[in-house]
Amino acid sequence: MSFGVDNVGVLRLIDEIFGEAGEIARLLVEIEVGENRSGVIEEGDFRALMSAFKECKNVEFCGVFSHDGHSYKAKDKCECEQIFRVATKRTLKFADIAREFGYKNFTVSIGSTPSLINDFEIPKGVTELRPGTYIFMDASQANAYGSFDMNAASVLSVVISRPTATRTILDAGAKALTKERRSEGFCTTPGMGLIAEHEVWIDSLFDEHAIILNEKFAKSVRVGDLVRIYPNHICPVVNLYDYAYLVSGDEVCEKVPVLARGKIA
Amino acid sequence: MSFGVDNVGVLRLIDEIFGEAGEIARLLVEIEVGENRSGVIEEGDFRALMSAFKECKNVEFCGVFSHDGHSYKAKDKCECEQIFRVATKRTLKFADIAREFGYKNFTVSIGSTPSLINDFEIPKGVTELRPGTYIFMDASQANAYGSFDMNAASVLSVVISRPTATRTILDAGAKALTKERRSEGFCTTPGMGLIAEHEVWIDSLFDEHAIILNEKFAKSVRVGDLVRIYPNHICPVVNLYDYAYLVSGDEVCEKVPVLARGKIA
Repeated sequence: MSFGVDNVGVLRLIDEIFGEAGEIARLLVEIEVGENRSGVIEEGDFRALMSAFKECKNVEFCGVFSHDGHSYKAKDKCECEQIFRVATKRTLKFADIAREFGYKNFTVSIGSTPSLINDFEIPKGVTELRPGTYIFMDASQANAYGSFDMNAASVLSVVISRPTATRTILDAGAKALTKERRSEGFCTTPGMGLIAEHEVWIDSLFDEHAIILNEKFAKSVRVGDLVRIYPNHICPVVNLYDYAYLVSGDEVCEKVPVLARGKIA
Repeated sequence: MSFGVDNVGVLRLIDEIFGEAGEIARLLVEIEVGENRSGVIEEGDFRALMSAFKECKNVEFCGVFSHDGHSYKAKDKCECEQIFRVATKRTLKFADIAREFGYKNFTVSIGSTPSLINDFEIPKGVTELRPGTYIFMDASQANAYGSFDMNAASVLSVVISRPTATRTILDAGAKALTKERRSEGFCTTPGMGLIAEHEVWIDSLFDEHAIILNEKFAKSVRVGDLVRIYPNHICPVVNLYDYAYLVSGDEVCEKVPVLARGKIA
């Protein structure tokens, strides 16, 4: 197992704690590439970190990684490619600096799903891709890609009420789908999850209810019917369930435990 | 155990299924009171449902319930009281109709947290209050009540990075806090969760990161510090954890399993 670090203070703390435990920490350095989240920003700070690695006895430098998550908000594929190129170039530049410090054959890890589903050329020197949403896809990524053909995960829900001619209620709410909106760029969705077979979006979510305001949909389903929902963002949705069910057509082939669920803290 | 029903079709289905199982279903009828979610809207439909109860052999009518969740969006305490009064009056009216059908001593259940924390007078005839958020409170409810003194649940998080003079990053993201916004009425919060001890709001959430853009806060914490966050909405947050820790001061008194977690479907 390895994990990330982005400053000298934490590196020294890790070195001390792993030293006390008689263990070596395998570390990758995070490079900030425009998402404005964590990661080293200044080259000078990165050089200081590389020097500190040399001084620490209980850490191993395993590489650099970055996340161009701002690609989610790109207005189109062209802007997404621009974000990807700038982010990757910057990551490779920091990898070159690490080489100046004598490191070789380390990991150079990049990736966000929007920038990797669109088949942009991956520059030489990148050794690892981490497009997390890619494995299942979701309604937002499908919007960015332009097709729902790659969506592999859905939440099965029951129609529980049709109190008016236009209002339908499902038993999947925020506790089953999360209440994540996508409101910027080419990942934008107009609702809180897509019912693909009926081509309707969920209008609002309560904890245990989804509301769809659509007369055609209300007429085409009955209480008790099952519908499949593509969540806006699949990552926090997987984190809600103890098991995933692998299906082929309508047949359940396997029940897979979600081992990492809830292992946030 | 009892559960809700809001139309004749479902009632007959429940009657049939419980009959096959040789069991009696204990049912309460949901009354729609302005939230525009589930529940019986028309008195005629309620009367039809009451008649259907009389014909069914495997169901027991246990009462009526309503949820005035639109009180969350009230612009102030005065509008909240108005919503509460209208909703409660309507619930009691449907209870009276149930009495016309010969039912006595049944449950009349009301409640949403904003309308019950403000000590409005509860009319005679109401037998049960269901203010779910009330048990823990959250940042939105505290806004509606005007004080954080009643907040009992928080998420403990670690400062993991301070990459710029203004930007601080915590290890609690959407998978630890949910990404729920409150953007209407007196429950509105300006951010994605409150760090009460420092009086700062979280500006944005990624799956595993919270970002706070505040120079004073960035200066007052160090990487490794623990901070307590009041989530915007506590209900779906409790649903993320296997255990809750009861604390007195800084001492953990008890570890309580969250037995209903993930029991949505």
